[in-house]
Amino acid sequence: MATLQAIKYNDGQLEILDQLLLPESCIFIPICNVEDAWAAIREMKVRGAPAIAIVGCLSLAVELRKLAAPETKEELCRFVKEKLDYLVTSRPTAVNTQLAAEACVKLCARLTDNTSVDTTAAKEDIIKHLEAMLADDIADNLAIGEHGARDITKKNATKDKLRILTHCNTGSLATAGYGTALGVIRSLHKANKLDQVYCTETRPYNQGSRLTAFELVYEKIPATLVCDSMAAAAMKQFKIDAVIVGADRVAANGDTANKIGTYQLAVLAKSHDVLFYVAAPFSSIDFQIPNGQSIPIEERPHSEMTHTGSTRTAAAGINCWNPGFDVTPAELITGGIITEKGVFKPDQLAPHQSN
Amino acid sequence: MATLQAIKYNDGQLEILDQLLLPESCIFIPICNVEDAWAAIREMKVRGAPAIAIVGCLSLAVELRKLAAPETKEELCRFVKEKLDYLVTSRPTAVNTQLAAEACVKLCARLTDNTSVDTTAAKEDIIKHLEAMLADDIADNLAIGEHGARDITKKNATKDKLRILTHCNTGSLATAGYGTALGVIRSLHKANKLDQVYCTETRPYNQGSRLTAFELVYEKIPATLVCDSMAAAAMKQFKIDAVIVGADRVAANGDTANKIGTYQLAVLAKSHDVLFYVAAPFSSIDFQIPNGQSIPIEERPHSEMTHTGSTRTAAAGINCWNPGFDVTPAELITGGIITEKGVFKPDQLAPHQSN
Repeated sequence: MATLQAIKYNDGQLEILDQLLLPESCIFIPICNVEDAWAAIREMKVRGAPAIAIVGCLSLAVELRKLAAPETKEELCRFVKEKLDYLVTSRPTAVNTQLAAEACVKLCARLTDNTSVDTTAAKEDIIKHLEAMLADDIADNLAIGEHGARDITKKNATKDKLRILTHCNTGSLATAGYGTALGVIRSLHKANKLDQVYCTETRPYNQGSRLTAFELVYEKIPATLVCDSMAAAAMKQFKIDAVIVGADRVAANGDTANKIGTYQLAVLAKSHDVLFYVAAPFSSIDFQIPNGQSIPIEERPHSEMTHTGSTRTAAAGINCWNPGFDVTPAELITGGIITEKGVFKPDQLAPHQSN
Repeated sequence: MATLQAIKYNDGQLEILDQLLLPESCIFIPICNVEDAWAAIREMKVRGAPAIAIVGCLSLAVELRKLAAPETKEELCRFVKEKLDYLVTSRPTAVNTQLAAEACVKLCARLTDNTSVDTTAAKEDIIKHLEAMLADDIADNLAIGEHGARDITKKNATKDKLRILTHCNTGSLATAGYGTALGVIRSLHKANKLDQVYCTETRPYNQGSRLTAFELVYEKIPATLVCDSMAAAAMKQFKIDAVIVGADRVAANGDTANKIGTYQLAVLAKSHDVLFYVAAPFSSIDFQIPNGQSIPIEERPHSEMTHTGSTRTAAAGINCWNPGFDVTPAELITGGIITEKGVFKPDQLAPHQSN
């Protein structure tokens, strides 16, 4: 069964699956420019740290393809940088868009310095660079899946099949395709090593019940939905072997910002002697920040907690606290951080930075 | 401000607040007989271990008041026992209905044996016994509130005001009035010792966001709603002083069955060095069962997890696990078990059984 494809890009035409409409309907919407992408990211029609970086960059490729060649390379690069700076403001916690923007700005500088490249060729190079992100991300995710599945299988060598708990959505709907944490689960399933995956609802936005459950049903992976409040009871009752989650940003020391609720899953995993893994592309690691304390945590609208569709689920007038993310200290990541370069202990990330 | 009154009983007329309609509307529905009560309990129009026992018993009082006096006391007692046996089947985890039924059956036996009591007088005695439960429960809750507030204040003597986290609904909507865990919070607030109460949503049925938040807003108690997934982050960020929850059934050794999610709050409290209290009337303690392993855990319909009102919140076809309760081992109840007789360490319950 082919995995879900939520970002479709062909010849300067970009369409994304509107995740706000899932699981009710499966509808693709066109993204015609950077403003469309910014709005879709902000409204969470597309979410997931890798996916929002890719959709942002592809939306810029769409604009560049339509753009009449600017007079100078400087003008071209100013245009690109302005658009990227704007895209970075769409959501503050994930680092992927920022890193993608920095890489693109560096490319612009190189092209500007290179006198053998004219403006039209520079534009083509930037477009190619942006468009390559889609295939690169899928390749990275396949590598993450293989590394992770091998590590988890090795650490549970006495067991025939494994029980995995995951949080939020880190699959085809959060990445260019295949997924990070959910990619590892896909790889375990492909290797006939998966007994059952338990996915949390992931309140308040229900990415687990709406999106992860959708992907798991779509690909017939044996899965059970649990509420966030049931994680410890599930660990105890079903003897879960590992928790695997994604990451929005990993600090240099391995502290990991991810969807709210991740921190408590890590605490619960530790106290139930369950391995805890983070799966993320190496680009999610922000070596600029020493630890998790410097990661900005986005606060989301209270309406996410007080309403579900048109149904009010919280008493009128109640104050809410709705952080989008929390930070899991490196020492709780007992399994390791799974990247396309391999699985690392949180304190072993730095040496692999420039590999 | 008067506390909410969710069970209204006057002269053989019983009405309950339909909690399924909260927080949208505040509508009372008549309960005319035991069948009405059984259905209202099963459908969770009324919930909370003490409240369902009281509504069940009052519904029997309503029937008895309308009943033409039976020919014999034996016939009367058979009628009462049949009705009580039926009420016990409405929800299996809480012990309160069962204990109330046993007490009433014992009264029936005493009345049958007492030759100086005729059938009419026996009927009156049974009605009085059933009707007394309402006032008795409120008195017990006020005592629970006082004992709990005093204990928590004493154990945090250096702090001016306290931050408390609570789960599910244990207030006026779960009891005859005032509440157990929420009663303790009310008493802390009355004593000007409450900084803020954090109430969890309590998925999948949202008793926290719908009911507890409703009570807290109603009485202007400073409160913040959090998702179940945010408990650990809240403990860390807001330096919560104590977690207080209710109980559906406490085993002889102190193991406590309560709303799903309680167990993981206890684990999280322990690892964050936060006191963990259970507040419950002494009648919630089931000395017949040695530990939590023997407490039956009700599994609830999957639809509670897949839909909110008319909105589908989970992908079609996903399997769900929906236990209504979990068991918190006694050793995690670090604060103690707060009852109307005082606050006890879990292993100190038995000596107070017949006080």
